[in-house]
Amino acid sequence: MTPRTERLARQLDRIEVDALLVTDETNVGYLSGFTGDSSALLVERARVTVISDGRFETQLRAECPDLAVAIRPPAEASGPFLAGIVRDRSLRRIGFEADQMSVAGFARLSKATPGIDWVETSNEVEQLRTIKDADEIATIREAVQIAERAFRSIGPRITPQTTEREIAYELEAVMRTLGADGVSFPPIVAAGPAGALPHYRPGPAPVGDAPTLLIDWGASFQGYASDLTRTLTLSPPTPRFREAYEAVLESQLAAIEAIGPGVEAKEVDGVARQILATAGLADAFKHSLGHGLGREVHESPRIAAVSEDTLRPGMVVTVEPGVYFEGAFGIRIEDDVLVTETGHEVLGRLPKGLDDGSPMG
Amino acid sequence: MTPRTERLARQLDRIEVDALLVTDETNVGYLSGFTGDSSALLVERARVTVISDGRFETQLRAECPDLAVAIRPPAEASGPFLAGIVRDRSLRRIGFEADQMSVAGFARLSKATPGIDWVETSNEVEQLRTIKDADEIATIREAVQIAERAFRSIGPRITPQTTEREIAYELEAVMRTLGADGVSFPPIVAAGPAGALPHYRPGPAPVGDAPTLLIDWGASFQGYASDLTRTLTLSPPTPRFREAYEAVLESQLAAIEAIGPGVEAKEVDGVARQILATAGLADAFKHSLGHGLGREVHESPRIAAVSEDTLRPGMVVTVEPGVYFEGAFGIRIEDDVLVTETGHEVLGRLPKGLDDGSPMG
Repeated sequence: MTPRTERLARQLDRIEVDALLVTDETNVGYLSGFTGDSSALLVERARVTVISDGRFETQLRAECPDLAVAIRPPAEASGPFLAGIVRDRSLRRIGFEADQMSVAGFARLSKATPGIDWVETSNEVEQLRTIKDADEIATIREAVQIAERAFRSIGPRITPQTTEREIAYELEAVMRTLGADGVSFPPIVAAGPAGALPHYRPGPAPVGDAPTLLIDWGASFQGYASDLTRTLTLSPPTPRFREAYEAVLESQLAAIEAIGPGVEAKEVDGVARQILATAGLADAFKHSLGHGLGREVHESPRIAAVSEDTLRPGMVVTVEPGVYFEGAFGIRIEDDVLVTETGHEVLGRLPKGLDDGSPMG
Repeated sequence: MTPRTERLARQLDRIEVDALLVTDETNVGYLSGFTGDSSALLVERARVTVISDGRFETQLRAECPDLAVAIRPPAEASGPFLAGIVRDRSLRRIGFEADQMSVAGFARLSKATPGIDWVETSNEVEQLRTIKDADEIATIREAVQIAERAFRSIGPRITPQTTEREIAYELEAVMRTLGADGVSFPPIVAAGPAGALPHYRPGPAPVGDAPTLLIDWGASFQGYASDLTRTLTLSPPTPRFREAYEAVLESQLAAIEAIGPGVEAKEVDGVARQILATAGLADAFKHSLGHGLGREVHESPRIAAVSEDTLRPGMVVTVEPGVYFEGAFGIRIEDDVLVTETGHEVLGRLPKGLDDGSPMG
């Protein structure tokens, strides 16, 4: 077993099962260290078995030395193979990941395992994943640093002739050069009014005549994500933009300041929302304040008005207030923040003041 | 309605349902032309409704002018919203995509819709997608051409100092420059013995001292994939390599020649497998011959010994025999082939003879 699978095994009493079948690929990777696919974990109280096929046998022995491995013969379907394993071990009640397994997949599984009582579970591994260990924090820190270094390096190269798409591709290319696996999500690079569109994709037109540029990007490094946003001015900002920008920045700084162990996530959202409301921008802040960050770029906890999560040391969350004015511009400022034993730490040091320098300068 | 949704609506009698709820994102995009996410289609006999939320309202009106649109109010959950729609329309039996919907998602859905008889369906839209129309064929043809142009352009730039990863990134960069959305899958660039590993990822070492280079890559263009493989020699090939290469090429050409309407997919696989067996390479050919290609890089039909699919005009399939020798090298040659009314057409013209020129030349 491994420390992570031991933590999960300690949940089996509460879920009232003999074992938990983990089929979500991200969860399998988190618990086992395995980087392949098409494999599942059977987590019992004192044993964890990776269930895989011959393609991954060599890789599994190297990546998961502390786990048992069951390799399905080519001629056997996965349902009957699993049935044989659970029969050998006299398992009766087994939990499965009901958010991940399809209705058709579950029908095949339960047909192949008569006598097994399958129990729907939800978010068991995802809950463990919210608390990052020292290695994970170091990895996310590196993912943030790579993203920030790429941003600094491309800034001076943006000219009025540069297109949104070129900026997106260049960020990706530089992050890869710096050791990233790639982007953690397709970057948003939105000039002027496009910054107000929530699902904008970078386009082929030069940014030249747009006054503002919103860039939301992140690196994937050794399987962990960073997620940052900056909003730049490409020409002297209007008073309306400046006023909104200062309010967003104030709300972001205050929300970060509110982060600490034991704090309710909805409180943190409320701090930012209150400041934007006071500035008359309540309606322009159209989304929640942030989300957990780790193997996935969006994971638990939620930092939202309706969140029921409480912040705990080891959580890494984004803080990203934004305001959007259709046809005009959008402003969003986003950092990645670690909850510590005593408060919080912003994982990164990229400037965010309106006058901290423009990429065109 | 649209031609594609009309074709699906004609299946409802056979499935014995009043409507089909389509939730798979690729299927929704195929049927409706919608490029966003988080949306579903309710396909009735004479009406199709896109069920979405306010973020996509503007985009839906532009992308789906021939479909009804139902926008869920922010305060309403999706289950009760759908329940209202099916009640208004007096629907009783509704099919859903059992391979896509999760057990937990289905539990929420059925709880929100008492009185509805939900019917598991499988591969209904995927079956329609196997037959490409003229627009789709033109798009895939362009995806192939972009991939081939990128390959031709980077070939002369490969030197012994170039790394696998640089080749992969450069292919991606050139394909984007040529108009691709990006890669259709992370390219495999495998020097020497790495070519024998089925799940290899490009590494940071120079290809310099490796005798062979296997490259499996493709472009995504306007949502459609291409998928090609070439195996290059970086130094004069050994007799063993040459013999295996000629056998793989012969098997690929013969399998392509066997493709035509009404031909069983397993026959085509058998043609390649027989030639490789005659060459003493039966055990080295460790996978099936190919797969359908379209919005996904792997889709129906399967070209395999166990396939039950029959080729029909409009299908686009890969033909990719390969042989693998652990610790030594791998050889795979892959093209994308359209099934026509009278036979077949290879979508591309990239040379594949062993002596058709090396990238190092």
